[in-house]
Amino acid sequence: MLTKNELKTYSSLIQKKFRNKENKFIAEGSKIVEEGLNSNIKCEIILASQQYYEENLKDLQHIIKKGHRLEILKSQDFSRLTDTVNPQGIAAVFNKPAKFLNAAETLSSKIVVCLENISDHGNLGTIIRNCDWFGINILLVNNCADLYNPKAVRASMGSIFHVRIFEDVPIEHLTGLKKNKYKFLCSDLNGENIYKYTLPDKSIITFSNEASGPSQNIIELTDEKITIPKSGKAESLNVASASAVILAVLTQNIK
Amino acid sequence: MLTKNELKTYSSLIQKKFRNKENKFIAEGSKIVEEGLNSNIKCEIILASQQYYEENLKDLQHIIKKGHRLEILKSQDFSRLTDTVNPQGIAAVFNKPAKFLNAAETLSSKIVVCLENISDHGNLGTIIRNCDWFGINILLVNNCADLYNPKAVRASMGSIFHVRIFEDVPIEHLTGLKKNKYKFLCSDLNGENIYKYTLPDKSIITFSNEASGPSQNIIELTDEKITIPKSGKAESLNVASASAVILAVLTQNIK
Repeated sequence: MLTKNELKTYSSLIQKKFRNKENKFIAEGSKIVEEGLNSNIKCEIILASQQYYEENLKDLQHIIKKGHRLEILKSQDFSRLTDTVNPQGIAAVFNKPAKFLNAAETLSSKIVVCLENISDHGNLGTIIRNCDWFGINILLVNNCADLYNPKAVRASMGSIFHVRIFEDVPIEHLTGLKKNKYKFLCSDLNGENIYKYTLPDKSIITFSNEASGPSQNIIELTDEKITIPKSGKAESLNVASASAVILAVLTQNIK
Repeated sequence: MLTKNELKTYSSLIQKKFRNKENKFIAEGSKIVEEGLNSNIKCEIILASQQYYEENLKDLQHIIKKGHRLEILKSQDFSRLTDTVNPQGIAAVFNKPAKFLNAAETLSSKIVVCLENISDHGNLGTIIRNCDWFGINILLVNNCADLYNPKAVRASMGSIFHVRIFEDVPIEHLTGLKKNKYKFLCSDLNGENIYKYTLPDKSIITFSNEASGPSQNIIELTDEKITIPKSGKAESLNVASASAVILAVLTQNIK
């Protein structure tokens, strides 16, 4: 039985300030909960609506056998846990994983994605999913949207549990990466054609806010601008789509 | 001066049934309105909030000089025109363009995108933007989300005014395209590696709903399945990101 206080705490996790206070986040939807349970990230509790419980009894009993705490909620209580209009009826509360502290000391992979000022939670989650598909780690700098926002978690489709993500990376760490021979590539409308581009040994590809563009810090760090050539009339690509294309083309260059 | 009835009609365009009844749609945001005004699609009226009007007087007077009707609204009236929480304060009502009737008789381009059952308006708009970037026409079949939904229009960032989109295409027209020597490619988790794939002379690339996958009709039409190889752990890509990657890689094959 879930206490009133517990329900209050878990439903507060929709808001960033309470996620920060509790150091927990809530993941909603069966696919995403499953990915979380299969990861190394600690699950505190699984919450299901009465209807979801009745319709998925076997799967849920399997979960209880594994030792997870499961509580069943009335649908009006369940709806307090989520910002979706028609929730699936299953969610889980996870401890936020420990932050990776110093990217410059930790990273060695050939391609790393660096996101700055990505304000749309859906785009952030989709980029995480793209990076997961292509096996890429992520640095978040300069006021990106919160990784653990329910919409970002949902859009990541569970990739938030797979990808190594360095949050709140200070600019000095980027300078450290530059000293570690990383070249900084910035996606731009006027840069080198990605199809003809020879990738450096170690690259950090930066994606910034679509509306405001790269910050002065990122511009100063940039070694090369890269561009997806266009054949149509759109002025730009959505940042998540652009990240997918650039990773799809550039990861081919290192094989 | 906008009449009460006009405000009622224009604010009803948020809903599909009224867009269908009036054969009009509303586009919100300065960039999107600008793209609409630069297109061949007829604009009925431009609506601005008092604040937007005061802050963008020059641009708006330029628009009035071109002969467009402009009305200024109190912010609480303007908010009735939009489903966004913080609207920019500028919107315009456009006539829906005439539907393209028979894709099989009209299309000749080497690559065409066919969308079925794409239910998320954001994804639909983003795919339209992707297709616009790569200069590709679109067929919509089997219950796609409404093209003129405000969220789809917004996500297209004005590309809805550029791309040739065939709505509600009946399956028989797809069969007609097959007779016109189009090969049907279906994006799938187990198909030909897109990086090594030799594109047919004329291709229709189908993208279906992420959750439900391709319908029986599309499966029967499919000549070849194509896949974006993965190096990470994500189970799938977001459909808009997948479309961007596939178009980016395959349009290179025809140059």
